[in-house]
Amino acid sequence: MKGIPYTTKWLDFTDVEPEIKKFGLPPNERGALKHTVPTIYDPNTRRAITEAFKINLYLEDQYPDTFSLLPKGTRALQAAFSPTFGKLLDTMLGSVVVSIYNEASERDKPHVRTTREAWFGMKLEDIPPQGERLEETVKLWEELLSDIGNWIDAGEPGALYLGGDAPVQADVDVVSVFLFLFRTAPKDHALLKSLENVSGGRWMKYLEAFSKWTA
Amino acid sequence: MKGIPYTTKWLDFTDVEPEIKKFGLPPNERGALKHTVPTIYDPNTRRAITEAFKINLYLEDQYPDTFSLLPKGTRALQAAFSPTFGKLLDTMLGSVVVSIYNEASERDKPHVRTTREAWFGMKLEDIPPQGERLEETVKLWEELLSDIGNWIDAGEPGALYLGGDAPVQADVDVVSVFLFLFRTAPKDHALLKSLENVSGGRWMKYLEAFSKWTA
Repeated sequence: MKGIPYTTKWLDFTDVEPEIKKFGLPPNERGALKHTVPTIYDPNTRRAITEAFKINLYLEDQYPDTFSLLPKGTRALQAAFSPTFGKLLDTMLGSVVVSIYNEASERDKPHVRTTREAWFGMKLEDIPPQGERLEETVKLWEELLSDIGNWIDAGEPGALYLGGDAPVQADVDVVSVFLFLFRTAPKDHALLKSLENVSGGRWMKYLEAFSKWTA
Repeated sequence: MKGIPYTTKWLDFTDVEPEIKKFGLPPNERGALKHTVPTIYDPNTRRAITEAFKINLYLEDQYPDTFSLLPKGTRALQAAFSPTFGKLLDTMLGSVVVSIYNEASERDKPHVRTTREAWFGMKLEDIPPQGERLEETVKLWEELLSDIGNWIDAGEPGALYLGGDAPVQADVDVVSVFLFLFRTAPKDHALLKSLENVSGGRWMKYLEAFSKWTA
């Protein structure tokens, strides 16, 4: 989105920690895992940066003339949005862990099973919500979508994004959850149906607006 | 804060509804009361506007060259902050209702008692939290203050406000809750002590920064 050239190195789950350790990065301050993606290495400055928000701040400082996802005056407000992003992600995560496990490489499968079973406190196969638990999940998901939609509508008239006329990091967070769901959820999953259908399909328009970057 | 000249007409609680009705305003879409303050009347346009956010949007549109509390690109993000403002207000409200009642005029006292007892579902005198309930209230209050402080710190380095270097409406919301607490809470109340002392007194500096407008 900033127009900075890059290449992506995809890693098996199993390789994330040893590969990122090579950059000499200290372990994460928070979270269950010591080293995580996204992590970037910038050959211009020979610096490695980990964690999405820190990467974003680094890119803003290092490449100030590129499109900004953290415009001045929005950074604290965007940080204040992060709990909503966390809730949105947490709400859909349980529905996709089995798909992630099934698509994982054979060497990754034990890692995926062990970490997810520890996080959710249950057997992997029991994590995806069903029946009443699924209904509650869909209800919470739709409430979150409704809140975010209402906030966008309370902003500039006709604006599409939390950032107004242009997307900001908070929008990228939201759209990333949607893309994650599309990429990993079973095709007929209730959360996907709801994302496609609620609020007259506004979230499909939102995704469409991002297609120039996500293609 | 926008430098627009104004006069304030203070109203007894009892007079709010009949006075505001005179402007021909429709009743509020949400909330327990049909007509509320703040409401403004602009003699330049002969228009009356009610509800804080709508007043703010009106003033932005009508007086675009004044200092902005809703800069473009922050409006949706500020709307997303409103649940936090709501939580902050709700957390302190129970602690001040008896003081408000005691300071109310004799003709207002029945109105204050009836509305507050209905909202809280208990006798007025039982509303202010004590003992364990007060401890829980202080804990929630300090968690909210800590979250808001962390969001400000995650923004521009050294910035004081949710809006960065300049306050936005979200900051006014926060500081208004603080001022409301100072104005109405018993002097030695635990919420006041905590506001004065947490995070090395950062919220006193925050209040001090607003003193040029709040004096």
